[in-house]
Amino acid sequence: MDYVRYFQDRLNDIKDEGRYRIFAELERQRGQFPTAHYYPETEEPAVEGVTVWCSNDYLGMGQNSRVIDVMKEALDKCGAGAGGTRNIAGTNHYHALLEAELAGLHNKESSLLFTSGYVANMTTLMTLGHGIEGCILYSDALNHNSMIEGIRHSRAEKRIWKHNDLKDLERLLAADDPDAPKIIIFESVYSMDGDIAPIREIIDLAKKYNALTFLDEVHAVGMYGPHGGGVAEREGLMDEIDIIQGTLAKAFGVIGGYIAASREIIDFVRSFGKGFIFTTALPPSIAAGALESVRILKQDDLIRQRHQERARTLKEKLRRAGFPVMPSVCHIVPVEVGDPVACKQVTDLLMEKHKIYVQPINYPTVPRGTERIRLTPSPLHDDATMDRLIEALKDVWDILSLTRAA
Amino acid sequence: MDYVRYFQDRLNDIKDEGRYRIFAELERQRGQFPTAHYYPETEEPAVEGVTVWCSNDYLGMGQNSRVIDVMKEALDKCGAGAGGTRNIAGTNHYHALLEAELAGLHNKESSLLFTSGYVANMTTLMTLGHGIEGCILYSDALNHNSMIEGIRHSRAEKRIWKHNDLKDLERLLAADDPDAPKIIIFESVYSMDGDIAPIREIIDLAKKYNALTFLDEVHAVGMYGPHGGGVAEREGLMDEIDIIQGTLAKAFGVIGGYIAASREIIDFVRSFGKGFIFTTALPPSIAAGALESVRILKQDDLIRQRHQERARTLKEKLRRAGFPVMPSVCHIVPVEVGDPVACKQVTDLLMEKHKIYVQPINYPTVPRGTERIRLTPSPLHDDATMDRLIEALKDVWDILSLTRAA
Repeated sequence: MDYVRYFQDRLNDIKDEGRYRIFAELERQRGQFPTAHYYPETEEPAVEGVTVWCSNDYLGMGQNSRVIDVMKEALDKCGAGAGGTRNIAGTNHYHALLEAELAGLHNKESSLLFTSGYVANMTTLMTLGHGIEGCILYSDALNHNSMIEGIRHSRAEKRIWKHNDLKDLERLLAADDPDAPKIIIFESVYSMDGDIAPIREIIDLAKKYNALTFLDEVHAVGMYGPHGGGVAEREGLMDEIDIIQGTLAKAFGVIGGYIAASREIIDFVRSFGKGFIFTTALPPSIAAGALESVRILKQDDLIRQRHQERARTLKEKLRRAGFPVMPSVCHIVPVEVGDPVACKQVTDLLMEKHKIYVQPINYPTVPRGTERIRLTPSPLHDDATMDRLIEALKDVWDILSLTRAA
Repeated sequence: MDYVRYFQDRLNDIKDEGRYRIFAELERQRGQFPTAHYYPETEEPAVEGVTVWCSNDYLGMGQNSRVIDVMKEALDKCGAGAGGTRNIAGTNHYHALLEAELAGLHNKESSLLFTSGYVANMTTLMTLGHGIEGCILYSDALNHNSMIEGIRHSRAEKRIWKHNDLKDLERLLAADDPDAPKIIIFESVYSMDGDIAPIREIIDLAKKYNALTFLDEVHAVGMYGPHGGGVAEREGLMDEIDIIQGTLAKAFGVIGGYIAASREIIDFVRSFGKGFIFTTALPPSIAAGALESVRILKQDDLIRQRHQERARTLKEKLRRAGFPVMPSVCHIVPVEVGDPVACKQVTDLLMEKHKIYVQPINYPTVPRGTERIRLTPSPLHDDATMDRLIEALKDVWDILSLTRAA
């Protein structure tokens, strides 16, 4: 066995397919979001004044001065790290305050923090799928990898239903033992296409077949609902979802993930979830910053309105210029390119010629033939920034002879 | 299916076994480590002046003022969060600098950051075990849960060898197909017992049977070796280990995990590791703080000497007072109680009567009948603090009629 050769061969495979990822090394500039410095090489000088168009810091809360201030205060007060796992010396007062705040945000009895949204999904689904004897897991076909891995590693029976297809979901539910425990697992906002699940109807099916519901709101918390509770809050359905999962890394601008649910469910995952138990807790400063961010966004509905207006405006500007904007009913604006090589060329040219950073989205993240760029306009992307993007896209589209409507 | 009842029953099971975990809510006091405030209830006033004796912030770097200062600078410069996954807008200049520093620390070509040590272990082992066709994984029986989960979910063939038992390891290696790819997976310092693996001999077996070696140094990096490269550095063996895994959350005092290895291995895990790809990157301030901490500990061998001296002194003081110190060849000082109920009583009394916080370590973390308290003396635990601990333990031992040597 020649290990080096083996790894090289596998890497060459994805290079040949055009799927090898190169990370753009940035230095976000606080106070000038969405602007960043860009380092073509770590040890070389940076290119300044690059505009970031694909961040998941959807509302720019990562540069909010109140958030930054409380993080610095917490650093001064409690130091850099948590100092242990949640069970062994690592639970800080800020964790308790944040968990209470998140339970309140979703009107649940309790909540539980994880080091990331990925770990929240994976650990919760592994723990429930493995811990509830005979449980069957029903998963939307486009669910995020963190849910897929949690479902797979739980070793529970699983059923994949066609994306947002209620008939297919009901067909699967009806075919199984009515007495078997069941969990229906789905997202509210699907981030690669920007569509939204039929939450009301899924809840109805869950009730009919006595299933628990697990709703991933990572692309919605902070951004939808009168207090940023997510799409389920907007639609008045939070109380009918059993487990709401969210992230502190996107709209809230920091890092970490969580679930909110009944006292029993939270205590069950807290007590049996290995990815929760055996890991160092989030730093106090992270919990403090997230807490402040959640509190700010509970109050600030104007930023949500501005966010939605910016997304509408960008879609409108792109359509008017003839770009193939894909259907999206949310703040995410995918523009189809339809070819992996062209998609990479678009983004390379945007950076080189126009100092605009967007990442190409290729297979396997999206189906082949639907390769795209995925724009995330924030409240900080103003009209002038959008107009510069449109002009840059026109230039790049022309250079590459890509088509756009008249 | 009555879900609430089901969860309640499972929780009652562990309550009946005395295994239900209650987290101590602390507020570490920077500048006064190892002192913290303790909140018996989140909304009630805190008990001040509690001494923490079980933190994994082994060297007190969590309160280092240079670490805190660079974290605050990075917050001001780049904001709170990374703004995306490593591939989509989330790679920051600080990540690149830290990965270069960690590669240098372990004298490897490359390194890769993860959101935690848990995710580093799980993702790397899943990715290698799954990605190398026909791979067999050899795992020490006392490996940490993060490795066990990674091995299990890789679905690769696995062999469990008796803890630190070279004969058993060789027996298993010799029984398998010589041409099959193999990885030997072990820790340097085992944190519940404080023993250390025979690294030299394991490397020899790996060479004999053409296996890769994966060494978890989470309880060693920063603390062992002339530059804090871990036990493998201390023993001059870093270059002969294929993959070194470490954490930024213990001796380095912040949060996050990493692996250091050849360029090919790192690029393989970077390109295929789902728990790496699909998650938001560590905040720039976290990477900045960890970078500073690694740099400080590369230079500061005195703090390592002081740390070892403190551990020796505590063991000596405990032995002189007749307490059952378990054998340990490192900085971790386990004291056996041998019964789960008594173990919990010891720690409750230490907190209530003496404002000393230690977490009871019970089954399944350690075998039944070996329940213990696990003390982690840092360079900041001075003689007076140790003497107060000894007096408190004597008092508690007397109250509970536990035995100690004359």
